[in-house]
Amino acid sequence: MYKVKVYVTLRESVLDPQGTAVKNSLATHGYEGIQEVRIGKYMELTLDESVKDVDAAVKEMCERLLANPVIEDYRYEVEEVVAQ
Amino acid sequence: MYKVKVYVTLRESVLDPQGTAVKNSLATHGYEGIQEVRIGKYMELTLDESVKDVDAAVKEMCERLLANPVIEDYRYEVEEVVAQ
Repeated sequence: MYKVKVYVTLRESVLDPQGTAVKNSLATHGYEGIQEVRIGKYMELTLDESVKDVDAAVKEMCERLLANPVIEDYRYEVEEVVAQ
Repeated sequence: MYKVKVYVTLRESVLDPQGTAVKNSLATHGYEGIQEVRIGKYMELTLDESVKDVDAAVKEMCERLLANPVIEDYRYEVEEVVAQ
């Protein structure tokens, strides 16, 4: 079994209005010194052993469905989980 | 300057309909062997040096605003960035 952690973030050049809203909201709550907030997605996929090439499969899933490569970057970590 | 990475995930006991939708969508796209998908949030905060106790500040921000402790778990990593 594989546990895959996928991180999807907006590219640096893309504006992040959601992050700006959170930043302003934190300031309203009295938190100072926050320069920037950027918001992304975090996904945990559990794959079973039938998946042959996990790395290639996850890469393709990211490109095709999980991220929008035009405005988003992604990275992932694959972790093999041994059933107990 | 500090770079803080915050990961917010739904608690194990909470249903994740968004994750199920992505899982079904991946299956529709022909990806087999996916047992579960769970979706969370990933946030990158940039804090400046004026923040005294970064760890405590981030914990409080998570509890009060960034996560909903009733249904979500969070974890974070603080990284000190040296300006060049």
